[in-house]
Amino acid sequence: MNLPEAELISTGSELLSGGALNRHTACLGAALREKGVLLVRETTVPDRKEAIIDALRGALRRVKIVFVGGGLGPTHDDITKEAVAEYLGRRLVIQEQELEDIRRKMAVSGRVAEDMCRRQAETIEGGRLLPNPVGVAPGIKIDTEDASIFLMPGPPDEFEAILRTQVLTFLGGTRNILREHIFMVGGMREVEIAAHISGAVQAGVEVYYRPAPGRVELVLESSSLSEEEFGESVAAVRRCLGRAIYAETRVGLESVVGNLLRRKGRTLATAESCTAGMLSARITSVSGSSKYFVGGVTAYTDRLKVAELMVSQRHLERHGAVSATVARQMASGVRKRFHADYGVSITGIAGPEGGSVRKPVGLVFIAVAGPSGIQVERNMFGGGRERVREWSVVTALNMLRLLLEEDEEAGAR
Amino acid sequence: MNLPEAELISTGSELLSGGALNRHTACLGAALREKGVLLVRETTVPDRKEAIIDALRGALRRVKIVFVGGGLGPTHDDITKEAVAEYLGRRLVIQEQELEDIRRKMAVSGRVAEDMCRRQAETIEGGRLLPNPVGVAPGIKIDTEDASIFLMPGPPDEFEAILRTQVLTFLGGTRNILREHIFMVGGMREVEIAAHISGAVQAGVEVYYRPAPGRVELVLESSSLSEEEFGESVAAVRRCLGRAIYAETRVGLESVVGNLLRRKGRTLATAESCTAGMLSARITSVSGSSKYFVGGVTAYTDRLKVAELMVSQRHLERHGAVSATVARQMASGVRKRFHADYGVSITGIAGPEGGSVRKPVGLVFIAVAGPSGIQVERNMFGGGRERVREWSVVTALNMLRLLLEEDEEAGAR
Repeated sequence: MNLPEAELISTGSELLSGGALNRHTACLGAALREKGVLLVRETTVPDRKEAIIDALRGALRRVKIVFVGGGLGPTHDDITKEAVAEYLGRRLVIQEQELEDIRRKMAVSGRVAEDMCRRQAETIEGGRLLPNPVGVAPGIKIDTEDASIFLMPGPPDEFEAILRTQVLTFLGGTRNILREHIFMVGGMREVEIAAHISGAVQAGVEVYYRPAPGRVELVLESSSLSEEEFGESVAAVRRCLGRAIYAETRVGLESVVGNLLRRKGRTLATAESCTAGMLSARITSVSGSSKYFVGGVTAYTDRLKVAELMVSQRHLERHGAVSATVARQMASGVRKRFHADYGVSITGIAGPEGGSVRKPVGLVFIAVAGPSGIQVERNMFGGGRERVREWSVVTALNMLRLLLEEDEEAGAR
Repeated sequence: MNLPEAELISTGSELLSGGALNRHTACLGAALREKGVLLVRETTVPDRKEAIIDALRGALRRVKIVFVGGGLGPTHDDITKEAVAEYLGRRLVIQEQELEDIRRKMAVSGRVAEDMCRRQAETIEGGRLLPNPVGVAPGIKIDTEDASIFLMPGPPDEFEAILRTQVLTFLGGTRNILREHIFMVGGMREVEIAAHISGAVQAGVEVYYRPAPGRVELVLESSSLSEEEFGESVAAVRRCLGRAIYAETRVGLESVVGNLLRRKGRTLATAESCTAGMLSARITSVSGSSKYFVGGVTAYTDRLKVAELMVSQRHLERHGAVSATVARQMASGVRKRFHADYGVSITGIAGPEGGSVRKPVGLVFIAVAGPSGIQVERNMFGGGRERVREWSVVTALNMLRLLLEEDEEAGAR
């Protein structure tokens, strides 16, 4: 492969001491790929000048495009500009216009604020400012004799905004010769998928698995096969996995479910116990979800399950809140009460407390109710509290997706 | 500083192509710090043998403790063990007992599954297996003449489980000579905090800011000052920030709010519109939250705000759903309806659609209702849909925290 290669250096002691997650790598990697540029290494170093310079020296030895994320802010631990200037033997300069812009954006006065504005306005001599559409500190592009260095602010949304609005235009024009196909697979584990597709993929195709709770992203990749040959493997995998495939682009189940509902003009309501709003939050992370999502109830107590979701007190006592019967009643209860076409419910034991021998931690019942009836599934999820909740949400979305697809097909017949 | 230093190598093409976030670095950094070990660099490389070997060579040149995360799974792109074995000139071997364990855990049969089991059971000659309490692949500890290498599985919960149950015991005994104090600050921006504490911190104390939506983690650190001198700076900062400080350990507002409610035996309910369950999901991420959280309503439509939250139709028409009046009615409505001591509501425009000149995207009203009355705040949050929602949730938790503290103080008088 001879695609251009890039590296990222992330600066920030907080990234190495547990204070924050690195979100730049995934964002940059995905964006560069669209332009046919491969991100081949990422290095995280503390906010120390020598560490930044050492990482920069290493990166420039290997590649011609280097990104440095973080350390452009106003506080004294923001030292990326000093480090890069020292390494390149250039000065730091202040552009008056930029200083004015930053004063206006910071909208705070006083001596300390003025010092901070000046620090943020500093740029590296010969560098080109990359305006920041969502925050204060601009990015900086510096060209050396044989490489380009992009300095990017640390807050993930600012990093991404400058990347999308500025940086990618400099990288435009390159063509992607890497063939790639993505399958999003719901309700199957990595090893089940592998067993199903074994034999379907011909030599020259690489297969990658990216598992997350409740779903696996399956990637086929080739740099040697023709489009036709590659297409044969794609079609074979598609046949092997069938309905388990919920999309062939990198989207979440919440978007797929949203599209199915919108297309049919149907509405949805949720009834949650152990996930307590995670399902409704996920559904509404899609812009425009108010077109089909009407609302939801989190009924954490038994009393609320009866009062708000029309669960029968008698069944609750006989079967317990974590049962197929109660899951079914919650889904159909919220559907009726909120006048929605579909209702989804989750009731389970997320742990670490509350489990018993008959109903252990990780036991979760999920029900989907629609015009064609109600389905309920019993699940056992492993891992800690948050993992059990995350699996529950994604599994519920996948059940709903399958029901919506069935109803759509039945309607078309 | 002469604390022992460690590096992490993360393997995984998906980390560099946007398929997954690196969660190991934060987890490892925080855990090592507790043991007085500093994580000084993290390097992410693709699933390629040469790349892993190159990163390992570099790390072992700088430090004596190296972690390698990822690539221990059953699929052919998991090649960490091969790479490390080749670099060290050791063989891969299979222990029968381990193979049996893995067959049992995988619980799938067939030829493909058997190959996968064997791959997972392979270990490096002379390596010590670190049992995996939550997943299939064990970790491996390898000691060379002057360094220790820990191979850890990629799934973040498995990485963390092996780290907590196995690895940290090997690192026990070292003492932390770095002084550190953490302030969790709610409702103030980084630059406001900096202006407030300027002058309070003496020379020899480093100050780090770790901003996240709605809160800033402020860290004071010193390796040169005495305990008493360091304590003076800590006390001075505490005085400057006052009630904005919500904790002095790294905890979320949801835990602080939970403790306040639990201590007083009070209960809480939520009413959400634009955040649609994110607030209740966050509150219940705390184990044991069923002691004080009763439930919540997500009312995405106006109809449900009236029907479920006792919002007045007349006020809704006059002021709109995104207004102080409706926020107030939602908070007091859910409090009454769910028989809770406290009610919290969020109603706003998360965008990108739905904004207007009078009510732009990012406008969010938050209300808290309790035995002592109702408070409401108008907020303007920037950034995209998810950022507006995240700011809303954290700001609501901080408002609730302040009200609970006030009520507690009033009760104590």
